[in-house]
Formats: sequence, C-alpha cells, structure tokens
Amino acid sequence: MSKHNLKNRNHFTAPVEAGGPSSGPLTAEELQLAARNHAMPLEALREDITPAGLHYLLTHFDIPYIAPETWSLRIGGAVDREIELNLEDLKARPNVTMPVTLECAGNGRSLLKPRPLSQPWVLEAVGTASWTGTPLAPILAEAGLAGDAVELVFTGADRGIQGGTEEPYARSLTVAEAMHPEVLLVYEMNGAPLPPQHGFPLRLLVPGWYGMASVKWLASIEAVTSRFEGYQQAVAYHYMQGPEGPGLPVTRIRVRSLMVPPGIPDFFTRKRVMDAGPVMLRGRAWSGHGEIERVEVGIDGEWMPAHLDPPAGDFAWTGWSMVWLAAPGEHELRCRAMDSSGALQQTTQVWNYQGMGNNMAQLVHVTVR
Amino acid sequence: MSKHNLKNRNHFTAPVEAGGPSSGPLTAEELQLAARNHAMPLEALREDITPAGLHYLLTHFDIPYIAPETWSLRIGGAVDREIELNLEDLKARPNVTMPVTLECAGNGRSLLKPRPLSQPWVLEAVGTASWTGTPLAPILAEAGLAGDAVELVFTGADRGIQGGTEEPYARSLTVAEAMHPEVLLVYEMNGAPLPPQHGFPLRLLVPGWYGMASVKWLASIEAVTSRFEGYQQAVAYHYMQGPEGPGLPVTRIRVRSLMVPPGIPDFFTRKRVMDAGPVMLRGRAWSGHGEIERVEVGIDGEWMPAHLDPPAGDFAWTGWSMVWLAAPGEHELRCRAMDSSGALQQTTQVWNYQGMGNNMAQLVHVTVR
Repeated sequence: MSKHNLKNRNHFTAPVEAGGPSSGPLTAEELQLAARNHAMPLEALREDITPAGLHYLLTHFDIPYIAPETWSLRIGGAVDREIELNLEDLKARPNVTMPVTLECAGNGRSLLKPRPLSQPWVLEAVGTASWTGTPLAPILAEAGLAGDAVELVFTGADRGIQGGTEEPYARSLTVAEAMHPEVLLVYEMNGAPLPPQHGFPLRLLVPGWYGMASVKWLASIEAVTSRFEGYQQAVAYHYMQGPEGPGLPVTRIRVRSLMVPPGIPDFFTRKRVMDAGPVMLRGRAWSGHGEIERVEVGIDGEWMPAHLDPPAGDFAWTGWSMVWLAAPGEHELRCRAMDSSGALQQTTQVWNYQGMGNNMAQLVHVTVR
Repeated sequence: MSKHNLKNRNHFTAPVEAGGPSSGPLTAEELQLAARNHAMPLEALREDITPAGLHYLLTHFDIPYIAPETWSLRIGGAVDREIELNLEDLKARPNVTMPVTLECAGNGRSLLKPRPLSQPWVLEAVGTASWTGTPLAPILAEAGLAGDAVELVFTGADRGIQGGTEEPYARSLTVAEAMHPEVLLVYEMNGAPLPPQHGFPLRLLVPGWYGMASVKWLASIEAVTSRFEGYQQAVAYHYMQGPEGPGLPVTRIRVRSLMVPPGIPDFFTRKRVMDAGPVMLRGRAWSGHGEIERVEVGIDGEWMPAHLDPPAGDFAWTGWSMVWLAAPGEHELRCRAMDSSGALQQTTQVWNYQGMGNNMAQLVHVTVR
C-alpha cells in the first residue's frame, strides 16, 4: 500500500479542499465540475436502457486513455497464485449481460442547504446500461484468497489529488461483498466496447451499489489483510453529520424514483407548460436494497398509486406510469417509491455533511393551460 | 409560418426570461442547464474523433424520442415539387462520411463579466465526430426552388419556450448557404445511427458553422420567400453590445485552440500538478473561416510555435503539439491559433451581450514539482 500516500492525513475529516458545506452562492469550481461531468436529462427516463452518451458520468480525476494491447489486469496481494489477465483472456471466460442501474452517491447534492462543496448534482445522476462481463468470484477462487484476506482493493488507472492526498482512484469490497455472484468485470456497455469515459478497457460493476464502487479503468485487484484506508474508501463516501467522522460508509443505493417532466420546457428556467387533459406520467424507480414494491404519484399533495412495469432486471430500474387528468392551473407533481425492505422516499430534505444518498422525492412544477 | 407564434414579440430584444447579463453569483437555473447539457472533458482532445458520449451536447428544449418507422422529412414551401423522404429513402441516396468539428456558439460564456444568463459553458463545448449522410443540395434541386425563394427553414421536432415565445427549434440558411456541397442531412455519427441526443433519426449538418445551425431531429425543410424571423434566428445567436439589437448574426466558428491540461488534477479545484521534465503539450485548433495556419503556445507569457498535424478534414480540427521542458514552480500555459483568414485568438476577454463566439485563448495554471 506504499503507493497510497496516507501520511499526514487525518482519515476522519471531510475533504479539506472544499472547505466544508457552504450557504453561499455556487462557486466557479462547482460550475467547472458540472461542466465536465454529465447528468442524464430526465426525458431519457423514457428508455429502458440509457444510451451511453446519456448515462450519468462522474470522473474524479481525468479520463485515462489506455492502449488495450498493452493493458492487463493484475490480481495479487494475499493470494495463493498471482494472476494477470489481458482483455482477450477476460473475453474468453464465461460472460453475463445484465441491465444495471447506477446512480452517483452524490446525486441531489446541490439541493442541500447548506450545500456540500463537491460535484453539484441536481437530480439526474443516474442511468441504466446493459453491461457485459465475466463474474469476479471464479477469478478470485482461481487466485486463492489467503485465509487472512479481509478485503479486495480495486485500483483504477486514473490518478489525482483529493483532500490533499494524491492517489489513484481506489475502492475496496469485503471478501463477502466481492464474492457476490452479480459482481462483474465488464468490458462492454450496451453491446459495444466500453467507451473511454466509462472505464475502457475494463471496469468493476457492483450491482445495487452507488456508482463509486464500480471502479473504472481497472488496473489491479489486491487482496489485503487489513481494511483499506484509501481516501475514496475511508474519507469520502460517508454519511456524516459534521466534519468529525467517520460516520457510516455509503454502500447500496437508497430507494428513489424520478419522472419525465411532462409538457414542454422553458429553455432557461426549465419550467414546464402543458395543455389540459389526460396525460400519461411516466418514470422509473430503483433501489439497491430490494425490489420496488410501490410507486406513488403526488398531485398537489394527494398521493395515488402508479402502475408498475415488470422490473428490467434484478438490479435495474422499474418503469412506472399513471394517467393524470390535468386541469388548468399551477400544479406540483411528486413521485415516491417504496422498496421491499420497507424503505420509502422522504418528501422533506434530509441533510448530511458530504451530500450523500439524497433520495428526497422529486418535485416538478407544471403550468397547465 | 403560422405555426411560429411571433405575435407580441419584439424581435430585437435579448431573451427576456434571462433578464440580461448578471454580475451576481451563478444561479440555480444556470446550474440546471449545466447539469443537463454536456461539455467535452478537455482530456478528450487527445482523440481525433470524439466518442458520442464525450461530444458536447446542448439541448434547448427536451430530447424528442422519435419512432423511425413513422418519421419522414417534408420538403415544401416555395418549391416546384413537395418531397417527402423517409429514412430508407435518405439512406438509398449517395452518401458522404466526413469528420466535422462542432462548437457551441455560447462556449466560454461563463467566463464573461458580466455573465450573460444562459447555458454557462466554461471552455469545453466542442467535439469532432465522423458524420455520415447525404448532400442537401441535390434534394433541393429535385424539389426545384422557386425563383423568389430566399431562405430554407429547417425545423426540428423539439419544441419549447424561449424569450417568452413558444416555438419548435428552427433555423434558416440562405439559398446560397444551403446549396454548399458540404451541407449534409446526416443519419450516422461515428459509424452508428445518430444517438437520440444528437438528433435521431436525422439532423442537418452545416460544417464550419457553430452548432446552432445543425438542426437536430429534423422534421421539415421549407423554402420561404422572406427572411425567417423565428426566435433562434432573429433574436438568439447575435453579436450584440446591449439589449438593443439586432447586431450581426452568429454564423461560422471563430478560430480557437484548446490544450489537454498537463499533469494530474485536484478533484475539486481542477488545478494541475506535474513533475518537472520534458512534457508533450497537445491540443487541437479549428476555425470555420479557413485552415489553421499557426498555433502558438505561451509559457509564462513567451509564445512559441507548435507543430501542426495534417488537418483531420476540411471542416475538422487540426492537432498540435509542443515539447515543454517544465521547471519546478508555478506556470501559466496558454495556446492561440491563427487561421488562413488572418484571424488570431485574443488573449484578453472580449465581451458581448449574449456571450457568443468567445474564443479567448485558454489559460491553464500548472504547478510543477
């Protein structure tokens, strides 16, 4: 772990460069991040599978450009046999294709007051792709994890500075988490090779978890005998109420639903206008904690059940729809989902220090004419 | 033209919803636009052809989802013969594939002081795709333009409100501009069908012009006998010094160059850090007014010529590179290009009311260690 410069760093303070949450105006730094990173325009909720160019995209550092001919994945550390696999080796292994919904753990951050200073997502940091890859567990079994291995550390080829620490992007999973059969090493997105921005040539895919777990541009997997304390694991991605941590780690995706805003938008304000009459409201709901059991649509505060489509997959979103007979006037539309764990989206804003896992119910203002 | 509601609108005032330029902080409306619309991360300048998911994307209203089976393009108005072409008809015609650099006319807007309130681009609203389609001119010839036709109006399937006016997105070209042989009706981007966000099933492509001319989700082409006065043509996209217009229309892309920021970034500030020693600085330069004749790199105020690659095409960017022997300390890097029309990028900020055509030379701060 010597490559991770952990000296002189308090693991239990929030990112220092951001200076803590702000009640001030949006900063140039946040705008720069919003420009680089891509949200999924909400009308793309219409599609079962999000096109690659509409899927949300968060790049912590820079997108590395990797020559596939010289790339290989190294599996080492506390294992019986070190393994090195190139892209052809990985493609020759059994493969699985599955739709998986990924959401950024920081989705909704810009709505918090005060506002944690980081990527200022509004609502749309989500997407569902059809991913193709090979299960991780058999590869770990072939390497033979040592009896005292407790975690696997997944390290990407991207590198930068965060919280004053220079590191490659790296995250860990416990051995039990990594051995889940749905955890994949993926090399295709929507039937094509991974685009550079989604991790070409190989990324980890941890279905059900927020996106930070699915390490892109995967370079190595290292079995370790003590808990990994890299920045992205031990400092970032925690539910905290203040700068003193550590708080609970962010893991699986909290239940959430979003709707396609009906009608047509105003370019600048994005306010919606539509004609009176029946309209089919549509959206998607997802959770990393179980199936979607119920979606309700709130029209001016009155909640009504939506029709649920069959889920697109065990780890993919569920479509929903409801006919609304829109009468002229100003209206507030909301949607909220409940999953099989009993978790229900809140309609009031819950706050945390890093702006993680904000699943407050969406609110859409519509003028019906 | 009755479908364009032009009543009660002064053509020569700037967008009213935005309330004119602001010296205040970034607004929630601008953040919402920055989230929806996608810039090209600057490291993607490394690629000759930008992957679809990294190409810049500005959607004025919503992305319309169009069923290709029922879609057709209608060519009418002041023509001898109305023509209706479906996607198969268009694909059966002669086809051309060419790399074309597109840039948003509002690129760089957020850097202006005061700041025009609209999509708050920083630097990266650009991309170069390989577009495949069929030339427009022969289709117009088959339709037979009437002797008094002065413009062609290109109308998309997207619709919304801007400046208080509800309209479909529509732009015009003069007959002479539309008959240029490089103007295409394109149905493929980078060898695949257009993604929904880039205009599926068909968009106009006007090489050399800022992106607003290349109307997406093309629904109709109408020959008209007087100048088109739709919002996107007569009000938006003008070089103006104040709210009283009209100013000159925005047309071709002004000369510009950008570099891949060297070194590694800080996540939040995007500040760059790199090791001392020789480094190859790389970037691209482009212009809609002619070939790139020269690119210079400024290191702490001293300008040196960069090596130019052969241009990727008549309307595509030119790669450039220069070795820099980086010494420890703080440095300011810039790049500027000159095209064959003699136009040179400025190193000071020029302002206009709508934030159009900002081609000021990029500035990159680097800490060399």
